[in-house]
Amino acid sequence: MIPIISIVGKSDSGKTTLIEKLVPELTRRGYRIATVKHDVHGFEVDREGKDSWRHKKAGAHTVVISSPAKAALIRDVEKDLSLGEIRDKLIRDVDLILSEGYKRDVQPKIEIFRKEKHQELLCTKEDNLIAIVSDRTFNVGVPCFDLEDMKGLSSFIEEKFLKVGKGKEVSLEVGGNPIPLSPFVRDFMTKTIKGMLSALKGCDPAGRIEIRIEGEEK
Amino acid sequence: MIPIISIVGKSDSGKTTLIEKLVPELTRRGYRIATVKHDVHGFEVDREGKDSWRHKKAGAHTVVISSPAKAALIRDVEKDLSLGEIRDKLIRDVDLILSEGYKRDVQPKIEIFRKEKHQELLCTKEDNLIAIVSDRTFNVGVPCFDLEDMKGLSSFIEEKFLKVGKGKEVSLEVGGNPIPLSPFVRDFMTKTIKGMLSALKGCDPAGRIEIRIEGEEK
Repeated sequence: MIPIISIVGKSDSGKTTLIEKLVPELTRRGYRIATVKHDVHGFEVDREGKDSWRHKKAGAHTVVISSPAKAALIRDVEKDLSLGEIRDKLIRDVDLILSEGYKRDVQPKIEIFRKEKHQELLCTKEDNLIAIVSDRTFNVGVPCFDLEDMKGLSSFIEEKFLKVGKGKEVSLEVGGNPIPLSPFVRDFMTKTIKGMLSALKGCDPAGRIEIRIEGEEK
Repeated sequence: MIPIISIVGKSDSGKTTLIEKLVPELTRRGYRIATVKHDVHGFEVDREGKDSWRHKKAGAHTVVISSPAKAALIRDVEKDLSLGEIRDKLIRDVDLILSEGYKRDVQPKIEIFRKEKHQELLCTKEDNLIAIVSDRTFNVGVPCFDLEDMKGLSSFIEEKFLKVGKGKEVSLEVGGNPIPLSPFVRDFMTKTIKGMLSALKGCDPAGRIEIRIEGEEK
């Protein structure tokens, strides 16, 4: 599963600026990064009157605009999605997801704090705080990085989230819910499936494997 | 795999208008529709200076904006994606994909033709033409529907693409390539995997199953 980290902080603490500095450093190290931002106001699909805007207006659940360098997708959702749901319903082909905000989500958090702006931290270790980026230091049991130390912060993220299990990942979801797998089950499943697939023509099971089986009709 | 149909036609034949009339009829029948439009000009991510625009500018591969009713995603692609790639890399949770245009793609096509605009059809059966929507009739071996007959056209699409194998679908992708499965292999894989999963706690294998196994490092 793609790891998720939330960049949190009180208002005007510099969350977007931190993401702007962190993404290039992680990208330079060869990782593909997705960012997620919550928008309570909603947004428009393309400009009014354009074809994809008309498709959406007609009731399409999902609208895709594809171009040679970028693709865009807009889809209906039934409720505000958690970061885990955003990962599972939307995001593919990246190594790490960084959200801006989402302080109430369960995912690990890095808080940005600038002493001229605020008095107190927003999060504690109980909120799954894993690091602080600040112009002062804190003694709260998590590492502190300087506002400009993107190399240090990137190495921390790399060690903790990007090197672990790279190339060995197995995920299983049933009926929309992720099922946790013990190392034994993970290994058994991987070997069983790869063994089964190795009998198929044109199929080299060393590549990334994706299997989807639709649910039974009730 | 989610079925794909391309709505094709010469310029100004009414492709967008046909999609605008077809989507509500299919939606009314309970199907979730995604539409796809090609845009050679590219497009901007959000408005200049906004947070998600800044994330993309900083080099994020993918940017998601999430709101209570809609979610949007913009991602880099290495080349113009085929409709099959758009389905596999972007689209989830719909029953049918309708593209506007994409006449050179391999997917099945419905051509819209209006006699006051053009002399000849754009596609033949060799282009995977499966139906024509027009104010005149053609004798080219595929059904013709009147410009206003969205009920007839929807029933045709429903019979051909939406009722077949509903709830019995299995898809397998290895190293980014879909692997075709014979009915025997499909049945064998489904039963083996469901049998294996039925031994796991908290896992009712009657639901939709998704398994991903990352590729081996070379």
